Amino acid sequence: MRFAHAMPILMVATAQAEVNPQADLTMKINAPAERTLTFDWPILRVGTGEYPAGPTGVTVFHFDKKVSVAVDSRGGGPGTVNAPYMELGYDMAELDSIVFAGGSWYGLEATTAVASALKDDGLRDGDAFAEVPNIAMSVGSIIFDFGGRRLNEIYPDKRLAQAAFRAAKTGQFPLGAQGAGRSAISGGLFGCHAHSGQGGAYAQYGDVKIATFTVVNALGVINDRDGNVVACYGDKDWPEPLKTKDLLHKWVSGAWPENDFAKKNTTISLVVTNQALDPAELKRLAVQVHTSMGRALQPFGTIYDGDVLYAVSTQELEKSDMAPVNLGVAASELMWDAILSAVPEQPQRQAKSGQAIPSKLRKDIQGEYQFGPGHRLKISQKGERLFATASGEKSIYAFDPGKDTELFMTANGRLTVPGRYPLVLALENQQLIINPGPWQQVATKQP
Amino acid sequence: MRFAHAMPILMVATAQAEVNPQADLTMKINAPAERTLTFDWPILRVGTGEYPAGPTGVTVFHFDKKVSVAVDSRGGGPGTVNAPYMELGYDMAELDSIVFAGGSWYGLEATTAVASALKDDGLRDGDAFAEVPNIAMSVGSIIFDFGGRRLNEIYPDKRLAQAAFRAAKTGQFPLGAQGAGRSAISGGLFGCHAHSGQGGAYAQYGDVKIATFTVVNALGVINDRDGNVVACYGDKDWPEPLKTKDLLHKWVSGAWPENDFAKKNTTISLVVTNQALDPAELKRLAVQVHTSMGRALQPFGTIYDGDVLYAVSTQELEKSDMAPVNLGVAASELMWDAILSAVPEQPQRQAKSGQAIPSKLRKDIQGEYQFGPGHRLKISQKGERLFATASGEKSIYAFDPGKDTELFMTANGRLTVPGRYPLVLALENQQLIINPGPWQQVATKQP
Amino acid sequence: MRFAHAMPILMVATAQAEVNPQADLTMKINAPAERTLTFDWPILRVGTGEYPAGPTGVTVFHFDKKVSVAVDSRGGGPGTVNAPYMELGYDMAELDSIVFAGGSWYGLEATTAVASALKDDGLRDGDAFAEVPNIAMSVGSIIFDFGGRRLNEIYPDKRLAQAAFRAAKTGQFPLGAQGAGRSAISGGLFGCHAHSGQGGAYAQYGDVKIATFTVVNALGVINDRDGNVVACYGDKDWPEPLKTKDLLHKWVSGAWPENDFAKKNTTISLVVTNQALDPAELKRLAVQVHTSMGRALQPFGTIYDGDVLYAVSTQELEKSDMAPVNLGVAASELMWDAILSAVPEQPQRQAKSGQAIPSKLRKDIQGEYQFGPGHRLKISQKGERLFATASGEKSIYAFDPGKDTELFMTANGRLTVPGRYPLVLALENQQLIINPGPWQQVATKQP
Amino acid sequence: MRFAHAMPILMVATAQAEVNPQADLTMKINAPAERTLTFDWPILRVGTGEYPAGPTGVTVFHFDKKVSVAVDSRGGGPGTVNAPYMELGYDMAELDSIVFAGGSWYGLEATTAVASALKDDGLRDGDAFAEVPNIAMSVGSIIFDFGGRRLNEIYPDKRLAQAAFRAAKTGQFPLGAQGAGRSAISGGLFGCHAHSGQGGAYAQYGDVKIATFTVVNALGVINDRDGNVVACYGDKDWPEPLKTKDLLHKWVSGAWPENDFAKKNTTISLVVTNQALDPAELKRLAVQVHTSMGRALQPFGTIYDGDVLYAVSTQELEKSDMAPVNLGVAASELMWDAILSAVPEQPQRQAKSGQAIPSKLRKDIQGEYQFGPGHRLKISQKGERLFATASGEKSIYAFDPGKDTELFMTANGRLTVPGRYPLVLALENQQLIINPGPWQQVATKQP
Repeated sequence: MRFAHAMPILMVATAQAEVNPQADLTMKINAPAERTLTFDWPILRVGTGEYPAGPTGVTVFHFDKKVSVAVDSRGGGPGTVNAPYMELGYDMAELDSIVFAGGSWYGLEATTAVASALKDDGLRDGDAFAEVPNIAMSVGSIIFDFGGRRLNEIYPDKRLAQAAFRAAKTGQFPLGAQGAGRSAISGGLFGCHAHSGQGGAYAQYGDVKIATFTVVNALGVINDRDGNVVACYGDKDWPEPLKTKDLLHKWVSGAWPENDFAKKNTTISLVVTNQALDPAELKRLAVQVHTSMGRALQPFGTIYDGDVLYAVSTQELEKSDMAPVNLGVAASELMWDAILSAVPEQPQRQAKSGQAIPSKLRKDIQGEYQFGPGHRLKISQKGERLFATASGEKSIYAFDPGKDTELFMTANGRLTVPGRYPLVLALENQQLIINPGPWQQVATKQP
Repeated sequence: MRFAHAMPILMVATAQAEVNPQADLTMKINAPAERTLTFDWPILRVGTGEYPAGPTGVTVFHFDKKVSVAVDSRGGGPGTVNAPYMELGYDMAELDSIVFAGGSWYGLEATTAVASALKDDGLRDGDAFAEVPNIAMSVGSIIFDFGGRRLNEIYPDKRLAQAAFRAAKTGQFPLGAQGAGRSAISGGLFGCHAHSGQGGAYAQYGDVKIATFTVVNALGVINDRDGNVVACYGDKDWPEPLKTKDLLHKWVSGAWPENDFAKKNTTISLVVTNQALDPAELKRLAVQVHTSMGRALQPFGTIYDGDVLYAVSTQELEKSDMAPVNLGVAASELMWDAILSAVPEQPQRQAKSGQAIPSKLRKDIQGEYQFGPGHRLKISQKGERLFATASGEKSIYAFDPGKDTELFMTANGRLTVPGRYPLVLALENQQLIINPGPWQQVATKQP
Repeated sequence: MRFAHAMPILMVATAQAEVNPQADLTMKINAPAERTLTFDWPILRVGTGEYPAGPTGVTVFHFDKKVSVAVDSRGGGPGTVNAPYMELGYDMAELDSIVFAGGSWYGLEATTAVASALKDDGLRDGDAFAEVPNIAMSVGSIIFDFGGRRLNEIYPDKRLAQAAFRAAKTGQFPLGAQGAGRSAISGGLFGCHAHSGQGGAYAQYGDVKIATFTVVNALGVINDRDGNVVACYGDKDWPEPLKTKDLLHKWVSGAWPENDFAKKNTTISLVVTNQALDPAELKRLAVQVHTSMGRALQPFGTIYDGDVLYAVSTQELEKSDMAPVNLGVAASELMWDAILSAVPEQPQRQAKSGQAIPSKLRKDIQGEYQFGPGHRLKISQKGERLFATASGEKSIYAFDPGKDTELFMTANGRLTVPGRYPLVLALENQQLIINPGPWQQVATKQP
Repeated sequence: MRFAHAMPILMVATAQAEVNPQADLTMKINAPAERTLTFDWPILRVGTGEYPAGPTGVTVFHFDKKVSVAVDSRGGGPGTVNAPYMELGYDMAELDSIVFAGGSWYGLEATTAVASALKDDGLRDGDAFAEVPNIAMSVGSIIFDFGGRRLNEIYPDKRLAQAAFRAAKTGQFPLGAQGAGRSAISGGLFGCHAHSGQGGAYAQYGDVKIATFTVVNALGVINDRDGNVVACYGDKDWPEPLKTKDLLHKWVSGAWPENDFAKKNTTISLVVTNQALDPAELKRLAVQVHTSMGRALQPFGTIYDGDVLYAVSTQELEKSDMAPVNLGVAASELMWDAILSAVPEQPQRQAKSGQAIPSKLRKDIQGEYQFGPGHRLKISQKGERLFATASGEKSIYAFDPGKDTELFMTANGRLTVPGRYPLVLALENQQLIINPGPWQQVATKQP
C-alpha cells in the first residue's frame, strides 16, 4: 500500500517525559447517559470508565460464570488479546470478560487489567488443575480515538479499567458517547467526522436471549434501514437528508481526492446469546453477524478499519426452537439496531453573529495554550481582530501550524471559525475550552 | 449444530452404476444469453460451458499472463482449490485461471481440468525452475445446485470445463442463468427459491479498470439499492413489492419454523483490477468487497452458505490516483451491480383453466418417468382426473413419495399443480417435461 | 524473497501441442512392491496407480464410511483441495478419500477425480438433504516431482486416479518408490538428491489403531533415530556414514553457495486413528505429528517445501485409555517409522571401466533423442569417443545445453559419466535408456 | 477432548481478597546470572524483572527503531497480544517490543505495560498520522508457571514489566532460570519436572546477524544433538544417561497411565535477524525455525503446550548472500543451542542421614505455614518424629491434603522427604523455606 514502502523512521529518543500524562487523571465511573439500554440478564454485567480529560474510556463486559467465545477479525488493523486461542475450537467455556477501550494499542492495557483485577481480588486463583481452569480469561479490542478526534493521547489504563470492572452491574448499558465509545467518530472517509459512540440492543425470542453491543468508530458512514446517512458533517453542497447510495455514487463517480481522511478507525462488537452453541456454530454466528454490519456501515472492513467481533454463548439454554442461522438473522437485526443507537446528538455549527469581539475578551484570551504533547494553540490580537495559530507541530482542528485563522463572535458570546465542522472557543477561569460540551478540549494558558 | 451429533451413516456400497450419468451428455459452449456484459480488457477471457440436461455449467476466467490473487472464504461450507497457498502472501504473480462451477464438490473437477488443459495444450510446461514457474495455477470454487433445484446430480466435469476454457474469449460475459449460475437460486431461507444466475459489472475510472463477477446462489434474498427484494416466490399473503427490511422484521419477530429450507448454498465471486496491489492490499480488497456483499444479499455468510471471493490484480497499471480503500468502495458498488445483473426473468405460475383433461393426454401421459437416480415420477389416471406421485425415494418438487397430487389443465394445454411455485408439466415426443423453459427437467417414459 | 520482484512473464501462447503427452500412457495399478506394509483395518483401503513413462503416480486412501478430517498446512507451497472447509471445525464426519499424487498442481486432478468416480459409480449420489450429506468429499495434496527428477512433465490424471481408486483394497500399502512417491527425492538443499518414496507404519495399542503414511519429497535430508542421514549422494569429500548434525554444522558454518538446489519439494502425510476425537483434538493431533516430523526431516517446513498433513479419525472407537497427547506421541513415532520406510534402495554410481567404446555401439547410439518437451539429447561420435549434449533448452541431468560431455564404458557394457550422481546410458531396441531401473528415462531416436 | 464436556463451573464469588498478593512485592531487575549470552547488536536491548517471591519474571526485548515481525502460533493454548494484526502481511515495520512473561494469562499485562511505558515516557506519542504511525506496538506471550511449580500465583505485572523495560540494555541476555523463565520446567509429560529457564544464542555469518531466544516450559523433554535427555528427574529404574528415543519407545510401548502430568506448558521463542525480509519470508522463517524446535523438544506443539514463536527482521541489512532458506537453517541450529542453554543446574535430591531430629528443631518448626492462597502446610510432632500435611485445599509438592508425610534429617541439618523429586525443608528466622535455593518457597509461621 502507499505507506508500505516508507522507510522505518528512527524513534526520536527524547528524554523521559517530565510529566506522565496519565498521572492524576480524574475518572468517571458509570457516568450517567442520556439514553440507556436495559436488559434482564443477570449473568451479564457492564461497567464503564472514562477519563474526561481525553475524553476516552473503557467498557467492560463481565460474565458471572465462564462462557464460550469466538472471534472474527476483519479489519485492516485489529487490536486483540488472545485471539489465536479463541480460534482453536476447544469445547470448553473459559471466558470471563470482554473489554472494549479507546486509546489505540495502548488501550489493550484495559483488557489485561481486568484479568489482573479478577486475580488480585481473589475471584480467579490461577488454579489450572481444576476441571475448568480457574484462570481469568479476559479478551478485548480497542478503537483508535486519537488523531483529529482530540488534542491528546490519553488512554484508558489499568487503573481506569479495574475501576470500571469493579463497578460493573447488570441490567444497563449506556448508549452514545460513553465508555469505550467516548471519542468515536464515523464517516471519516467522506470527511463526515460525525460523533459516534457505543450502541446496544437486546431482545428475547421465546427463551432465547440475544444482546448486541458495538463501539462504532468506522471509516464508513452509518446507514439506517431507509438508506439514509444517519450522521455526517456534509460538505457545503451536499443534500439533506443524504442518501447513502447517493453518497457512494457521488464518491465512486467523482474524482478521487487523496483527501486527508482518518486513516485509523475500528468498530468493535459483541453478540451474546444464552443459547448453547458449539465452537463451529459460535464462529459462524460471529461471521454472519459481522458480515451483516456491512449494511449499517458503508464501507466496512476496509484497510483503515480494525474491525473485530466477539460472539459469546453463555450456554445457559441448552435447547431452543431457533436454528443457528435464524439466531444469526435475529442477532444481525439487533446489531443494526445497536449501531443506530450508538449515535449521539451532534453539536451544531454556530454562525458568526457579526458582532465585534469585546476588548476584554480579546485581551484575556490572547496567549498560548498547551493541550496534549505537540498540541499548542496561540491566540493573538491584531487590532480589533483575533487570530489563532497552532504553535506546536500538530494541527488543532482547523488551526494549522504557522497559519493565522481569524476568530469571530457567535450569538452567545463565544468565538468560532466558520467551516464544515463546529469549532467554538470559550474562555472560562483562565482555561481555553474548545467545543464546550461532551467532547470539549481544555487547556490552561501557558505562563 | 443440529446435524453435528448425527452418527456417520454407512455408505451403501451399491454395485457400480450401470450407466455413468455423465456419459454422452450434450454440451453447450458459450451459449447465447439474453443479456451480456461487455468490457474492454484484452488480458481477461471468459468461457462458459453447460450441460442442458442438468442444467448445470461452468464459467472459466482466464488471464493471458500470470496475475496475482487473494482469496476470502467466509461461508459455512466453501469449496476451494489451493486456498492455503493463496494465503501465504508471496509477492509473485502466479495465477492463470479461476473457475466457477455448479455440481457441489464434484464441480471442483472443473478447476483442476483447466490446469490440465493448459498443460496438455502445451501452454504451461511445468518448468518450475523458470524465474516465474511455468506451472499452470488454476483455482476455483463451486456452488451447490443439486437438491430442490433439479432432479439429477449431473456436474460440470473435465470435458465440459476444458471445452469452456478452450472457447474462452475476451470482451463478453453472459448474464443470468448461464455457465456456473445455470441452476442457481436465491432466498431459500425464506422459501423464496427464486431463480438466480451469474452477474457481472465493469467500469473504468481514469486508467483503473475494475470488473466484478459473481454466481449468486444465496440462502438470503437479493436486495436492491432501494431496499426491495428483487426476486422471490413469496408466500400467499406476502406484499408486493416486498421490502427486505419488512421481510427480515417479519422473520425475526415471527415464529421460527424449522422449515425445509435449502441448507446448501454458495455465492462465489471475483473482483479484478488492473491496478498493481501488493499481497496485503489485495487481501484487504477481497475482504472489503466481500463484506460489502452483505448489503445486496441478506443474510449473507451464513452456516448454509459457502461464500468465497477472489481478488485479482493483473498488475498492469503500476500507479494510479485511486487509493486502495477507494478502489474497494468502487469495486463494492460494482459488485452490487453484478449481483443485481445475475437475476434472470422468473417463470410465472400458471393458473388452472378449469377445463377437463383431454382423454388422449390422460392416456398418453400416464406411466412412470425416470429423471436422475432416485427421482422417479408416476402419473396415473383415476377416472377423468390425473394424479402424480414421486415413485423413487426422493420428492419431485411438490410431488412427494407415496402421495397422490392432482394435475390440472392450464390455458395453454399443459398440466399444473397450483401452489407457491410454478409447476407445469408437458408431454412432448414421449418425453415428460417439467417446467418447460430454461430450467426444464426432461424424462422419457419407462418401458 | 528473491523471486518476488521478478516481473510476471508473458505466457508464450504457442499453438496447441500436436500431441497431448498424457494420451495413451500405459498405466500400472497396484504395482507390486519389494516391501509392503500390512495392516488389519477393514475400513481403510489403499490403491496406487502409476505412469511408468513419468514415472509418476497416485496413491488413494479410501474409507468405507464417512470419517472426520483435519488438515495442517505448513510448507511454503502447499497444494490442497477444500482446505478451508476442513478448518471450520464442524463436528460431522464427511470425508471419503484422501488422494496423494505427483505432478505438482496438475496432480490435484487426481483428488477431484476420486470424488467424481464415487459419483459416477453411484456410491455417492449427491443428496445433500440426507442427515449426513451423501456427497463425496475427496481431499488431497501433491508433490512436485518435475524438475531434475525426470525428463518430462507427465502427471497423474483423472484416468489414472480413478483406476487406482477402483482398485483400492484393504490391508496393504506398498513402500518405497510407489504410487505418489514414484519420483520423490530428498535432501535437495544439500545436493543429496537421494531417491525417496512413500512410507507407512501401523500399530495397535489396546483397542487404539494408528496408521501413518507419508510421501517424502523433502528439501531436507532423512534422519534416523541415531542421527544418521539415511540417503544422500554426498559430495566427494563427505564422510560416510554422514551424521545429520555434522552436515548441518558444515552447512551453517561454511560459505553459503546459492547452489542450484531443488526449489520445489513437498512432503505430504496422513495419520489415521480409530479413536473418536472432536475437531479440536483432531487438529491438535495434526499439529503435534506434523511438528514431530522435523526430527526425521531436517530442515522441514521451509519456503521450498509444501508440507501438508491430514489427520483422520474413523470415529470407530468411542473410548480408550489413551489420552490424546499420548496418541500424538505414539503417532509421531509411527510417522518417523513411516518416513524411514519410504527410502528405496539407491542406485550406485558405476565406474568407468577404461575399455574403449565398441564401434558398433558408437555408430548405433549416435543421433538425437526426444524425452519430454524441451528435453532432447544428442549423442555424437568424435573419433573413437562419444559425447552427449542437451540439444533442447533444458539440461538432461549432467548434460547441459551446448556443452559436450564425454561418455565412458562401464564394466557391464553401458555408458556412464563420472560424477556425484549415477548416470548410465544404455541402448536397447533403438531406444536410449538413461539410468535403467526404477527411475529410467526412455527416448526413441529421432528420425 | 476429555475436559471438553465438563460443565462450566460457577465462579465462587468470594469477597474481595483482603490482601492483594501483588502488593509490595520485592523486585529484582536485571538480576545477575551465572551464565550470560553476549552479543553485538546495538539495536536490540534486553531487560529482565523478577519477583523472587514467586519466583516469576518477565523478559523484555526492545528494538531501538521500528522493526518487522511475524508470528507462528502452534501450541494448544497460546497467549498472545495483537496476533491477528501480525498475520496481515503489511510491509511496514511497526514493532517496538516483544515481551515474554510468566504468570499465565495474567502475565500478558507485562506486554501491554511496555507499550504504556513507551507512551508514558514520551517515546511514542500516539501520532497515527505520521508516515509510520508513532504508536508503540508491543506484542508478547506468556508461560504457565503456576501449579506444581510453585506455591503461589504471583504474576509479572505492569510495575515489574515497566521496570524491566526501563532497565533494558544491549549486549547481554541472562541464561537459565532468569526473567520469564524463572519458574519454567520441562518434561512434565513423563514426570521429569526438570527445572528449565530461558536460553539464547547469537551468531554472525558475514554481515548477517541472527539471535535466537526461548523460554522453555515444555511438556516434552529437552533433547541434545546426541539424542540424550538433558534434564529429567527420572523414575527409579530409569537408565542414566537417558536416551530420548528410549524414553519415547518405553512411553509408547508401555501402558498409558493417565498420570497427573503438567497440563499447562508453553515454550515461547524469538528469532531476530538483521537481514531484510518481506512479510512472506519472515513468516516462513518463523514456521521453519518453530518446526525445527521439535528436534530439541520432544514432544512439541501438543495440546498442552501453548507454543508461540516470533520472527523479527530489523531490516538493517538490505542484501546478503544468504538465501532465506539457509538463514532458516542457521537460525534453527541457533535455536537448538538456545534451548540447550536454557537448562539451569538441577538441585539434587538429599538423602536422609539417619540422624534423629533435634528436639529444638522439632519444637521450633511445628505449626502452620501459609504460602499462596490455598497453599498451607502444617508440621506436627508425634513423639520424636515430624510429619507434614497440606492443610489448605491444595497439595504442597509431595504433601497431600489430609495425609501425614514423615520428615527426615539430611546430612546438613535440614529436613527432607525421600522421593523422585528433591524436597528439602529448612527453618530460618521463623520462616519455613522449602527447597532453599533459586526456586525456594518461603512462608512465615501463622500465629
